[in-house]
This record gives sequence, C-alpha cells and structure tokens, in this order.
Amino acid sequence: MKKIQFADQKQEFNKRPSKIGRRSLSRSISQSSTDSYSSAASYTDSSDDETSPRDKQQKNSKGNGDFCIKNIKQADFGRREIEIAEQEMPALMALRKRAQGEKPLAGAKVVGCTHITAQTAVLMETLSALGAQCRWAACNIYSTQNEVAAALAEGGFSVFAWKGESEDDFWWCIDRCVNVEGWQPNMILDDGGDLTHWIYKKYPNMFKKIKGIVEESVTGVHRLYQLSKAGKLCVPAMNVNDSVTKQKFDNLYCCRESILDGLKRTTDVMFGGKQVVVCGYGEVGKGCCAALKAMGSIVYVTEIDPICALQACMDGFRLVKLNEVIRQVDIVITCTGNKNVVVREYLDRMKNGCIVCNMGHSNTEIDVASLRTPELTWERVRSQVDHVIWPDGKRIVLLAEGRLLNLSCSTVPTFVLSITATTQALALIELYNAPEGRYKQDVYLLPKKMDNTNTESCQATEMNNNLVWFLSSHQARK
Amino acid sequence: MKKIQFADQKQEFNKRPSKIGRRSLSRSISQSSTDSYSSAASYTDSSDDETSPRDKQQKNSKGNGDFCIKNIKQADFGRREIEIAEQEMPALMALRKRAQGEKPLAGAKVVGCTHITAQTAVLMETLSALGAQCRWAACNIYSTQNEVAAALAEGGFSVFAWKGESEDDFWWCIDRCVNVEGWQPNMILDDGGDLTHWIYKKYPNMFKKIKGIVEESVTGVHRLYQLSKAGKLCVPAMNVNDSVTKQKFDNLYCCRESILDGLKRTTDVMFGGKQVVVCGYGEVGKGCCAALKAMGSIVYVTEIDPICALQACMDGFRLVKLNEVIRQVDIVITCTGNKNVVVREYLDRMKNGCIVCNMGHSNTEIDVASLRTPELTWERVRSQVDHVIWPDGKRIVLLAEGRLLNLSCSTVPTFVLSITATTQALALIELYNAPEGRYKQDVYLLPKKMDNTNTESCQATEMNNNLVWFLSSHQARK
Amino acid sequence: MKKIQFADQKQEFNKRPSKIGRRSLSRSISQSSTDSYSSAASYTDSSDDETSPRDKQQKNSKGNGDFCIKNIKQADFGRREIEIAEQEMPALMALRKRAQGEKPLAGAKVVGCTHITAQTAVLMETLSALGAQCRWAACNIYSTQNEVAAALAEGGFSVFAWKGESEDDFWWCIDRCVNVEGWQPNMILDDGGDLTHWIYKKYPNMFKKIKGIVEESVTGVHRLYQLSKAGKLCVPAMNVNDSVTKQKFDNLYCCRESILDGLKRTTDVMFGGKQVVVCGYGEVGKGCCAALKAMGSIVYVTEIDPICALQACMDGFRLVKLNEVIRQVDIVITCTGNKNVVVREYLDRMKNGCIVCNMGHSNTEIDVASLRTPELTWERVRSQVDHVIWPDGKRIVLLAEGRLLNLSCSTVPTFVLSITATTQALALIELYNAPEGRYKQDVYLLPKKMDNTNTESCQATEMNNNLVWFLSSHQARK
Amino acid sequence: MKKIQFADQKQEFNKRPSKIGRRSLSRSISQSSTDSYSSAASYTDSSDDETSPRDKQQKNSKGNGDFCIKNIKQADFGRREIEIAEQEMPALMALRKRAQGEKPLAGAKVVGCTHITAQTAVLMETLSALGAQCRWAACNIYSTQNEVAAALAEGGFSVFAWKGESEDDFWWCIDRCVNVEGWQPNMILDDGGDLTHWIYKKYPNMFKKIKGIVEESVTGVHRLYQLSKAGKLCVPAMNVNDSVTKQKFDNLYCCRESILDGLKRTTDVMFGGKQVVVCGYGEVGKGCCAALKAMGSIVYVTEIDPICALQACMDGFRLVKLNEVIRQVDIVITCTGNKNVVVREYLDRMKNGCIVCNMGHSNTEIDVASLRTPELTWERVRSQVDHVIWPDGKRIVLLAEGRLLNLSCSTVPTFVLSITATTQALALIELYNAPEGRYKQDVYLLPKKMDNTNTESCQATEMNNNLVWFLSSHQARK
Repeated sequence: MKKIQFADQKQEFNKRPSKIGRRSLSRSISQSSTDSYSSAASYTDSSDDETSPRDKQQKNSKGNGDFCIKNIKQADFGRREIEIAEQEMPALMALRKRAQGEKPLAGAKVVGCTHITAQTAVLMETLSALGAQCRWAACNIYSTQNEVAAALAEGGFSVFAWKGESEDDFWWCIDRCVNVEGWQPNMILDDGGDLTHWIYKKYPNMFKKIKGIVEESVTGVHRLYQLSKAGKLCVPAMNVNDSVTKQKFDNLYCCRESILDGLKRTTDVMFGGKQVVVCGYGEVGKGCCAALKAMGSIVYVTEIDPICALQACMDGFRLVKLNEVIRQVDIVITCTGNKNVVVREYLDRMKNGCIVCNMGHSNTEIDVASLRTPELTWERVRSQVDHVIWPDGKRIVLLAEGRLLNLSCSTVPTFVLSITATTQALALIELYNAPEGRYKQDVYLLPKKMDNTNTESCQATEMNNNLVWFLSSHQARK
Repeated sequence: MKKIQFADQKQEFNKRPSKIGRRSLSRSISQSSTDSYSSAASYTDSSDDETSPRDKQQKNSKGNGDFCIKNIKQADFGRREIEIAEQEMPALMALRKRAQGEKPLAGAKVVGCTHITAQTAVLMETLSALGAQCRWAACNIYSTQNEVAAALAEGGFSVFAWKGESEDDFWWCIDRCVNVEGWQPNMILDDGGDLTHWIYKKYPNMFKKIKGIVEESVTGVHRLYQLSKAGKLCVPAMNVNDSVTKQKFDNLYCCRESILDGLKRTTDVMFGGKQVVVCGYGEVGKGCCAALKAMGSIVYVTEIDPICALQACMDGFRLVKLNEVIRQVDIVITCTGNKNVVVREYLDRMKNGCIVCNMGHSNTEIDVASLRTPELTWERVRSQVDHVIWPDGKRIVLLAEGRLLNLSCSTVPTFVLSITATTQALALIELYNAPEGRYKQDVYLLPKKMDNTNTESCQATEMNNNLVWFLSSHQARK
Repeated sequence: MKKIQFADQKQEFNKRPSKIGRRSLSRSISQSSTDSYSSAASYTDSSDDETSPRDKQQKNSKGNGDFCIKNIKQADFGRREIEIAEQEMPALMALRKRAQGEKPLAGAKVVGCTHITAQTAVLMETLSALGAQCRWAACNIYSTQNEVAAALAEGGFSVFAWKGESEDDFWWCIDRCVNVEGWQPNMILDDGGDLTHWIYKKYPNMFKKIKGIVEESVTGVHRLYQLSKAGKLCVPAMNVNDSVTKQKFDNLYCCRESILDGLKRTTDVMFGGKQVVVCGYGEVGKGCCAALKAMGSIVYVTEIDPICALQACMDGFRLVKLNEVIRQVDIVITCTGNKNVVVREYLDRMKNGCIVCNMGHSNTEIDVASLRTPELTWERVRSQVDHVIWPDGKRIVLLAEGRLLNLSCSTVPTFVLSITATTQALALIELYNAPEGRYKQDVYLLPKKMDNTNTESCQATEMNNNLVWFLSSHQARK
Repeated sequence: MKKIQFADQKQEFNKRPSKIGRRSLSRSISQSSTDSYSSAASYTDSSDDETSPRDKQQKNSKGNGDFCIKNIKQADFGRREIEIAEQEMPALMALRKRAQGEKPLAGAKVVGCTHITAQTAVLMETLSALGAQCRWAACNIYSTQNEVAAALAEGGFSVFAWKGESEDDFWWCIDRCVNVEGWQPNMILDDGGDLTHWIYKKYPNMFKKIKGIVEESVTGVHRLYQLSKAGKLCVPAMNVNDSVTKQKFDNLYCCRESILDGLKRTTDVMFGGKQVVVCGYGEVGKGCCAALKAMGSIVYVTEIDPICALQACMDGFRLVKLNEVIRQVDIVITCTGNKNVVVREYLDRMKNGCIVCNMGHSNTEIDVASLRTPELTWERVRSQVDHVIWPDGKRIVLLAEGRLLNLSCSTVPTFVLSITATTQALALIELYNAPEGRYKQDVYLLPKKMDNTNTESCQATEMNNNLVWFLSSHQARK
C-alpha cells in the first residue's frame, strides 16, 4: 500500500483550527455512546487488533469487499444501534416510506463525508431507499462508530472509515469514495468541506457532472461562501447549517436538555435551590435558563444586548453584572460567543465548590489559560472534571476544560440529529430534481424566517412545502 | 363657530375601516380606565354639561386660554392620574432627567396627534422638559381622558381634545394644532396618519420646515409606505410600530398577561384544570399559551405554519385540529390573524358553557355573523359578555362579540405604553438632531433584528445605543 | 312593624370583630359582581326606592308571599345570574341529577344562614331537588345579591335577605327563618354561627329535633368547638371549613389566580420583570409565588418555618430577610398570618411607587396604623387604592388598606365556591341519613389527610366515597 | 482465618428479599460513581488482586492496622472523592464547625453499619470531629467504594468493608465492629437493621450500655416497630426514614431531577414534544410530571386517589385512564406503589419504540414477568436497557427491567444524601445527650408535620430547633 503524498493538503489539514472548534454535534455522540457500551460490548475492545484496516482484506456475507472498515464482524451490533436510532428519526423513516415509490433520487450518485454514526446510517439507508447510490467517508478521524460502519458494509454500502484514522488514512478514505473506476458522483453531501475541497484540488473536472453540494457545518458553509465570493463556486450549494429548524434545535431546544444532562453526568449536582449565573441570553442561554429555572434553581443573567436583556427581564430573570453575584453563585455557565467573559479575576472570587462551564460557541469564554499558573493546583477528578485548587484550599470545578459542555459531557438526542438528517435528504432531493437554471452557482439558504409573511428571501418554496410535510409527520407520530 | 367644510376628508374619515380595526392599544385604556373611575370620580359625570367645548371660554389658573378641552376644573384629578402613570414609566422619567441638561429638543416645535391619556401626558411633559414646544390633538374621537387633557391645559400645553368629539370637531382640533399664527411646527408625532394627511392636503408647504415624522400605528405606517412608493414622501419618517421592543411587548409580553385579565374580568372563570384550545402559535398565541399553562390549564394548539407548529410541540403543547377537541374544551381562543377560524359548525359542537374569544388581529376569526340566526337567542349578561343560546338550551359565552379581547376587556399596562412612548421620544430626538443627509425621504425602521450579529439593515446605530441606554434604565430600576 | 328588642344579642353583634376579619369568600363576590353590573342593570339602582323591604307587601307570580326581599321584579335578572353560576358548578349539578331519584333529603327541613349569592342559589335549588325544604337568611348585612334573592323568592323559596340590612333587620330575618308556624327545622346550615347562636339563645328546645349542624366558616367552627369543650353542643356538627379540598382551593389554587387578578384590577401593573417579595410560603404564599414567577416576575420569599423555607428554596425562590430587598422591590405581598410583618420602618425604606398588599388571614400583617401619622398624606386614587405620600414626595401604593386583597379586589371563581357548596350538600346528606349513634354531640372533620394510607382519623368513610365520586364528576366534565 | 458459622443468620440473610427491594439510595451511588471512574482510575481495577482482604495484613501510614479493606494504597484517590462530597454537604460541614467546640458526642462510641461511600465518610469524620469514636461496617456486600474505605482507614477509622464481600465476610465485618476488646459501643447507627439484629442475637447484654439506635431504612424501621410491638425493644430508637425532609427530598425533589437523568443516561431521548403518561400523582409522580412538563413534554396522569387526582387536574395535567392514551404515548412511567399497573394488555398496545420504566416503590408496577413469553424477543441493547420485540417487529424499550429507574440508572445527588446524613448526626446527638427518661424504649419520629401549628405529635422539640438551624445553614450558603 502506498502512502498518498499530497503536501499542501497536509499542511491545510494541520492548520485547520476550525475543524476542532466547530460545532460538530455528531462527534460527541460517537464518543459518548461508545463509552456507554464499554461494559456491554467487550468485543469492541479493539486493543488486541492493531492491524490497520487498510492492510486487511474483508468481505461481507455476500462476498462484497468494496469498503474499508475496522471489523466486519461487528455488523450485528451496529445493526442494533441503527435500529435504535430509527425509533427516534420518524421524519426520515416517513420520507423513506413516502418517497420510496417515486424514487426521487433514482440515478443519484452521492458521495458523502460525514460523521459515521447510527444516525448517519439511517440517512444513508434512506437515500438508498429513495434510489441513490452512495460512497461514504468519515469527516473526522475519531468519530466513526466502528460497529455502525460494519453494519453499513454488511448492508452493501461502500464505506471507508474507522475510529482512529491517521491523517493519511483520512484523505485516502475520501479519495477512495471519489475516485474509483466506473463511478462518477453527481451529488456531494459534505460536513466540514474537506470532501468538496479534495475534489476541487484533485478532480476539478468532476464538477461538470455534479448537480449540487449540500453542506451542514459552519466551517464548510464558510468555505462555500468564500468560493462563491471568489467566483469559484461552480455548482449550486445548499446551506443546511443555517436552516431555522436546525438553529432552533441545536440551540434552544437541545441546550434546554443538554445543560441538565451535562451537569448531572459530570457532577451529579442537585439543581434545586442552587444559585446559577448564565452569561448571555441568546438562544443557548434561553434554553439553559428555562431548564434550570424549571428545576428550582435561582438564575441570574448577564447580557449586553439590550433586546436580549429585556427578554431576560420579562422572562423573570434578574439581570446582573457578573461581579455582583460572582461570590454567591454555585454554578457559572457561559453562552455568549464572546471572549474572556469569565476572567481570572472572577475565578479568584468564586466561592469554594463553584462549578464553571461553557455552553457557548467559543472555548475562550472562560479564560482557562489564566488558570495555568504555578500557585494553582489542577486535579483531574473524573473524566471531563477538573478541580482547580487555590493556595487557601478553595476549589472550583471546571468542566470539559471550558470547552463546549454539551458536546463533551452530554449526548445529542437522536431526534435533533433527525431534524438535520431529514433536511439534508430534502436538500439533496431538491437540488437533484430542480429544473435546469433554477439554482445558480451560489449558496442557497433554507427559509430562515420564522413567519410566513416575510418569505421573499426564500428561494425554495417546494422545499418549504416539503418542510411542512416532514414536520407534520413528526406531529403525526405524536 | 363655523363648521369646517372639507368634503374629501370627510369621505375618507368615514371609509377608514382600518381606523376601527387597527391595533390601537391606547384606546382601550382610556375607556377602561375611565370606567374604573366612575364611582370614585363622580364629578367627571359630564351628563350635566352638554355644552360643546368649542363654545366655551376657559382659561387655566395662569390666565392662558390656548387650548380646547372639556373642563379645566378636572385638572387636579388628571394630575393624579399622570402621577400614577409616571410610576410605571421609568425610562421616560430617566430620559427626562438625563437629557434635561442638554435639552436635545431645544427649538423643536412638535405637533402631535395621539390618544390623550395619562401616558401621553408623561410623554408630552418629557418632550417639554427636553426643550420642545408642543401642540396636541386626539387621534380618536372617543379616547380622550378629559381630566388628563385638563391637567395638560393647566400645565400650559395647547391641547385640543375631548371625549366624544364629532367628526367635524376632530378635524377642527387637528387644524388648531397646525395652523395658528406664530407657530411653524418642525416635527410631527402621529398615530394613525390623520395629522400627516391633513398637513399634506391643506398645508403642503409646511413640510419644508419639517424635519421628520414619527408614526406609531400600523395604519399610519402603511400610509407612509404608500407615500414613499409613490415618491410623495417629502421628509424622513420613523416607523415606531415595527420596532422589536414594541412588537414583543404588544404581542408576547402584553398578551401573556392580558389573556388572563380579560377572561377574569368578564367571566371570573377559574383557569386551573380547564381545557383550552388556542388557535395560532405566533407571538400572541405563545403569550396566551404560556400564561394559561402556568395557571394550570390544559392547553391545545392549532397551527398551520410548520415552524410555529414545531415550536408549540417543543414547548409541550399538544397540536390538534380544532375538530378533535372542540367538544371537550372549556375555552376557545383565536390568535391566528386569519378569517373564519371558528366557524358555525364548531360553535354548534362546543359544549355547554364554552367560552369563546378572540385575541387576534382580526375580528373575523370567529364567525360571529353566523350566530345571528333566528334559532339562536342572544343574552347580554354583562358588559362585553353575551350568552348565545341554542334551542336545546346549550349556551356559549361569547366575549366582546369576537373583537379583540385584550382591548375590549382588559387594560394595557402603563409599562407597555412606556416602551412605545420612550421609543417615540428617542425617534424624535434622533430625527431632530440627525446631521443633514443622514436620513433621506424614506421610512426608517428601528433595529428589528434580535441579534447583534446581523444588524447590517439597521441604519440607526446611534439610536441603537440609545436603546441600550434606555433599557438599562429599566433594569437599573429593577 | 315592631322592633325586636334583644339586648345581649345586639351587644354581641357590635363586638363581633371576627365577623369582619374572618375569611368569608362569598362576601366579596356579591360586592364585586354587583359592581360589575352597575352599567348593564340600571334597574338595580335602588336609589329611587328607599322603602324597607319589611314595610313592603310582595308576592311572586304564583301568589306566594312568604319571603322578604328588596324587589321581586328583579327575579328574571337574578335567574340569569343563577344560570351563569350553574355552568361552573358541575359537581353540584351532577349531585342534583344523580341523587334526585333517591331524594336523600326527603323530609329534611333546612334552615340556612349564608351569603345570598348566585352560587348559594344553586346550592339551595339542589337541596330542594334532593327533597329538602329550605328557609334562608343572609349571614352578612351587605352581601346579598338582591336580584338573586328575588329569583329564589319567585321560585318559591322563603328567603329573608336584602343588601343593606340594619342590625335589627339582620336578626329579624334570621328569626323569620326559624320561628314560623308549622315549621320545625331539622338541619342547620350556617356560615359564621349566628343562626346557631340565635337558636341556642331563643329556641333551645328546637335542638331536640335537629339532626345536625353544617358550618363553613372559621368563626362558626371556632364557636362550635367552644360549645363542645363546654359540653354544651347538643347535636353533631360537621366542620366543612377544614376539609382538605376547601383548604387547598381557598388557599393554593384560588390565590394562585386571585393575586394576579387583584393586582391587575387595582393597579394595571405589568408583572413581567417586576421584583416582588412574598412574605410567607404557606399554601397562600406558594400560590402567589407560582403565579408571579410564571408571569415573569422575580420573586423573593421570606419565611421562618424551616420546612416551608426549604420548599421555597427547592422551588427556586431566593430566601431573604425583608430588609435585604425592601429597597429594591416593586411589590410587597404578605401571606404569613402573623402580625406586623411589614412595619413602618420597612414602609419608610420602600422605593417610590412600591405596591403593598396583604393576602394573609390577618389584616395586621401590614402595620397600616403606623401610616396614619401627620407627615404622611393619603390619597385615595381609585376604589381600594390609596397612595401614601412621604414628605419627600415618595409614594407607596397601598391596596385595600391592608385587608385581604383577594376578597376586596378580586372575585372568587364560582368553581371554588362549587367545591364548598358540594361539600356542604354532602355533609347535610351524611348527617341527615346517618344511623342513630354514628355521630355523637361533637364536631366532625371531613378527611383532612392528603393520602389514602393514613385515614384512620377519618370518621366518615361514606363521605369519603362521596368525595371520590363528586371529584370524578369534576373530572368527567374535563 | 476461621469461618464464622452462624446458621440461622445465614438463612435470614438468604431469605431477606426486602434487602434487595428496599429503597436504598446510597447503594446505587456507589455503583454508578464507581462506573464513572472506570476509565480515569485504572489502578482501581482490582482484577489483578484476588486476595481476600481478610487474608491481608495492611497498615496505614501511621502504623495503625485496626481495619480490613481492599487496598490501603487507594487512600489518596478516596480522599479526593470525600473532598468532592464535602462540597455538596454544607449542613454537615457547618455542624462540624459549629459543634466542634462543645464536642456534643464526646465519649460516644458509635458502631455503624451503612453503605461505605464518600458521603458516609463525611458523616463519619463529622461524628469524629464532634467527639465520637467510630467502628464501621458495610450494610451491603456490593456497595462499598474501596478507595473511600481506604481513605477512612488511612485517617484512622476502623473500617471493615470492601466491594464484593461474601455473606460470611459480611457478618464477619459486622462482628469485628462490635466485638473487639476494650470497646463497648454506646450508640448504634444502622441502615437495614442487620447490625442491630446481630447485637440482639449475639451480644444482647451490650444493650445495657447503649443509649439508642438511629435507623435510616424502611426495612430497618419496620424491624424496630416489630420489636417494639413485641415488647422487645430495649433502647430508644429514632426513625430517620420518615422525617419530612427526607421524604420530601427522596421523593419530590430528588425524583424531579432523577427522572430526567435516568431517561437521558439510558435512552438519550429528547423530552421536548414527547407524549408521556405518568401513573400516580403522589410526591414521586408530582416530581416526574413537573420536570417533564418543564422540558416540553405533553404529560398525562392516571390517578385513583381523588385528592391527588384533583391536584393533578389543577396543576394542568390531563387525567386519563391508561387505556385512553396507551397507543399514543412515547414514554410510560409508573409511580403508584401498586401492583400490575402496566399489564401485558397495555404493553401489547403500546406503539413501536415506547419507553417503559418504573419510578415507584415496588418493582411489580410493570408486569415484567408477563413479557417473559416465547413469542417475545428480548435484546439487551445497553446496560439497563432492553428491547422487547413483538413478532410483528414492534419494540418497546424497557428500562432497568422495571426496577426503580432512579436507583438503577441515575445517581442520587450528594445534596440529598446530605439531608439524610445531617439528620442522622442530629439524631445521634439528640439521643446521646437526652436526659434520662425523655425517651422510652420506643421508636421515635422526627417531626413529620409540615406546619408549625400542629406539632403536638413531635416529641423532640430540641431536635426541631436543630432542624431550623441546619436548614438555615443550607440557606446561608445560598
């Protein structure tokens, strides 16, 4: 097996800081759900098998070997995971049933690069049921659920992904999805933009046959807008990330649940009667505040935007400046998106046992670096939980080293991923079936406006109708 | 006293249906608060004084007679009302104090046409404290609080307004504010557009000296946009109606309280344990649902917009079609903005004693006309409460004949009006002090976006800063 | 017409302070609901008819004249009120239907002394439907709804009551219910104990035929326990006041709604964003806190009982001492049952515009007397609303002069009264039908325990079963 | 080392079914928290050390060897755990500080038998600080946190406990706490009654010097009442289990949080928009309903007790019979305390993917046995999560095999355990210091009444005062 030499890619790979920082919901899933199986599924303990998947020859039970994964024998276990996920993805299952007759993706050849999880598997099998052929790689070197990849391979999908890929593996897998004899992809489903980037660099001519790109992540969307500005975007692209449903779910509804989950799993703290300050009252802050208030916490809010401040006020939260309450609160949560919200001065003044965590987009909201000084002792007491100890014995409890709590210490409900996956499927259908000329070489948004009266900016009315329908299938299940 | 003959105006006055239907918060206030004084303030019983104010000669205690109101003797009582209102208008009082030194409205000559209520009086006295001269008329023939008008006149304001004006009176009052020797207005504060319209028709040259128009109402804003489209708008105008604060307060926060208030005052119904269906989950519906859920009602929601439907779902309300629950609910509330949401068929199927009311923008949501049939008996059991009785004895309780419940049967908190009044004052300051050329002959919006990241459409950043400041004065009071 | 001379009664009547202070829900109803009709029902304006009912000769349409009320012509209007009340009293209506066949009160001769309101009328007509004969007087000289009394008289009930009775009238009416030829009551339904007292004093032999007393009020129950302790109680008595349903409804559920209603009707205050301190976290305080929190207020609690304090804490309210927050709160509500909770010192320190009111059992929680000093000015700005003004201009807004807010400024939902009335009816049925010897000459309680496992102290299991049944009829309606 | 032969004990040990079923909060803690360390603390992996602690000779760093535990080298890790626990046990820490001067337990010789967890360690070290000497064994063969036991031994405590004791070990450890030369215990702190039982059987004379027993568990309290009834209780005993604080915390406040935690950790389900039926509206049910409602679930309640039903109704939950909603709900939760609430018939009718779990006291609420039939397939998909699969492919998700969800799948917050531990300490102080004769040979309750007005049944007023004080220290921390 020869190593791929591709210098400039390598460099870019290394300097991609956004890859780490971006809001990648699926990644945490795989980690935590893998964790949760550690006792039950001892056979997934791969420590005994150090052979690289690239060096193995595996075939599924039908003799098909067009995949590269860790261990095809884990397929049964992965199938169970997929079946569990199906339970919480009613819209996708409904789409599968409804559109199956018409096969709206008949002829589609989708190359995908996303986290390889049970939820992605439900999406892939739905695309397949709708008529598409798929080849798939992982968008992250750590996030693949090996047993799910096995189940997909067993089901006949050409999957190239395993947990713990090297950088070279990463690009090799992508390349194997794109560049294989007899295969000319006509749709791209990307998460982070690496796949798109690879094709631009290596196989630019391939875009002549590609009908469109569907991109989910902040980073990938950003890259697409840059391409578009530079006049280099040569196919229509659909920005799934900024769809209103995704935004509401990722932020308000998801955080309303994951703030409780993340705090409980790490600290087992009782919420009732605790004093909490939430920094920032955007959608994430609103979710956190609502949940903690409901659990009997006394919640204070800091906010500099006047509209959000007024909302906090009218929702019954006392607006404070951080220094007014920093000595008395039991928990500090940041959700501002700004830098240096909780600085060393505040950390110094917190009371013994104060829990500090970040739910915001940026891991610079808590000035964790300022705690790396000689007079403070760090003790790792649990996974994701550090005690930082002052000379006088005072401790603060720092969660996830100030990174995103809900990605590090909680799981994202499948239902939330279902929203995203369904939107991805609808976007693929839309782009694939759109009449010539409807979509230019530009980045398109799903309808973002919350009201029907102001949808002039919504170019995709068919899509909107589909949205109505897929939501109604959610409700029908209710 | 000669009658003003102004044929085309008259016609327009008569055909202005939107005047009745528009969302004019202040109007209800004056009605209900006047009602509430009926016992205490017997001397406001004007039945004994049928003389038209236009035929009276009145002077205030300083000998000034440049006003026309019902009865200057009511000034003391009106002053008490103004003092009560000041308590709940902290932002305006803070603006008064803060800006008093600089007199940002020094030289401003404001002609105003709004509801004449205690809250308006606080606004007018604030404008005066900031350096402005004012002349004022009523924008509605019924809404003037006579005692407040008296207190303003006693305080030296040129007010021309009384409760129960004739149509001719209405225009006469406006004309007296505009056209008086030695007075050339340079700012317009309008509510409904009648004042603006009058000046356009009668004194178009006056606009040469006018720096801008501040307009509050839906109707007035609509007229301004029409002028703008037709290229006839000759000064900058500020649309206060669509400011995000006003929208949030008028709809979500205000309705959250007024739905309870309106139902209690009319029916004394206990909310706990009642089954309620709320039609529509926009801002108004969200407010109604939140309040009733908190009081222990079981709330169902009907909604056709998928995003709003999903929000209702995630907020814990069961989404239904009206016919699924119409037989079992105790209360039906419409907040859709659509026509014929509750039609005769549904009314026929409601259970005995069901309460039906409308919180929406349009009074056609409940098909009240369909109840005007011979087999049904109407009984007026209280003010704003009708029993409609079926041949078998079943009754439904119809509130406010299907008109807006919160305007008919509740009061609007002064605090809500304070938000609007402060915004009006800030808009006047902005337009009056803006450097030449900043504002064109167009209609400008206050920042509508809820987030800071996307304020490219906000032309008025100074204003935004002022908004921050005035909100912080609200919070400071907290 | 000769005056009744009954010296010792007269004296007692005058010194009965508990009469004013006791928790008499019905009283306020009649007052406020009468108020609300003032416009609609101009013919109830009795100013033109100063003749005492005792000097009138009236007959109903069937020629029956065995009653004494204000004006039989108001019967139709009263009937409408009764029909409205029936809508919200499903348990009583169900009892009427269900027990009508068996006539469990056949032969019962009930003499009653309660507030004469529409709700009482529904109770009386239910008792009649169950087979009882009734004669009825008012337990309060002001609380009678004249039009309801008229409807009852028209329906054949012997009612002796009108609004504005003199003291002499009061006892004359009671006497006319008890002492009439050919009538020997065998059941007493009392509210306050005056009727019972009268029979003890004047017709003690009557108790030989009386099977039992049902008493609703705190005062009346207190008198019964005193009689019992003194060994003078000569028939069984049922204490309805302390039933768990009545307690929960009167306190928790009722106050949760009436705190909002009372504040709105008096001050039109907006709750969102207000800071409120609630003194006391018993059932009343719990109701107030829950409601205000739900409306977006920031609520602080003071509490000295450790268990209640812990509950407040776990429910998310910040526990404070009054002096910690007195300067910053917008609203102060007392619900402690103690004296002098809000003393002059705190009143001095409140901020301008602070609203002060009492929801507790005692009107001494706010030290109103301390405000009757020369340097403070009182201004009555509305019915039940006083501004107390300090020399520096600071005002506080005192509601209902510190008396019970929910009785003075709100109405009690009919549904709550329905609970009490149904319990009264069940208690009458129980006592009337109990086998000889089951009930001794003692005061009996309805089951007070909230759980089924610990009902050893519940002597009335049949009653308990009835309770189950009547509650299920409430639910069936849902 | 010789085996202890003690036949009748052995038998009892085996037949003690209540030991498994009883509500033993601490047990689950140790299990789950041990689990959570599995990755971080690889050195606790004791698989390499199969030597029985009874066969080891260990000494702490001061040369003391009077203990028997797994591995003294884990002391540092255990100390960290104890320090974490101290953060959430403010009342105990306050008691330690406050009472340290007086040493109220000077001379006390406490023999204890409880779960050996970090929280227990905080209690033991508090008792020691107050002057007591302690010897301690585990009340459960699986629940000991070995590292905590090590830290205690290192700190000089005579601890005899390890995870995975045999039955013989269990009694041997207890015996070593009781029967050692130069040690005569005078206080017993028991959890389950095994220690008490052992002394009764083996060393009855020891009771002459024992001042009292403090017992926490349902089972142990039951045994004490049996002894008392049989006239065999020879010292006063304090029933900590039924204290009102413990009850409120174990049920309402704890379950409000643990229902969310338990469901999330097992299923990652999203709560928003889910339909849930909660069977039973006692304290546990109230907690579950409040939490799920707050997270946006639509909650139905089944309840047969009329008072609880009425409460559910007034709290805004729709009362249903299970069969009305069984087809549509996403989650079924039992909290009734009854048998066979969810029977096979209902399980048959649930929809695909329905989650079923039990929060009630008894594990017979869900008829799990009925699911052990050949046509149904069971799949263990995760720890504590089974899919039960019908022949048509429908699955239900059964959690913890129908046992108590919050004990099996959640952790109990330290704060809750703090309440219990503080109460235990106070009870020890009370019994140890009570004047001769205050407590008879009976079982005493802590004050159960929620109100101060009715505390005639509270024999321990000093205790009550202490309760006030310890709660105030909780609040002071806020």
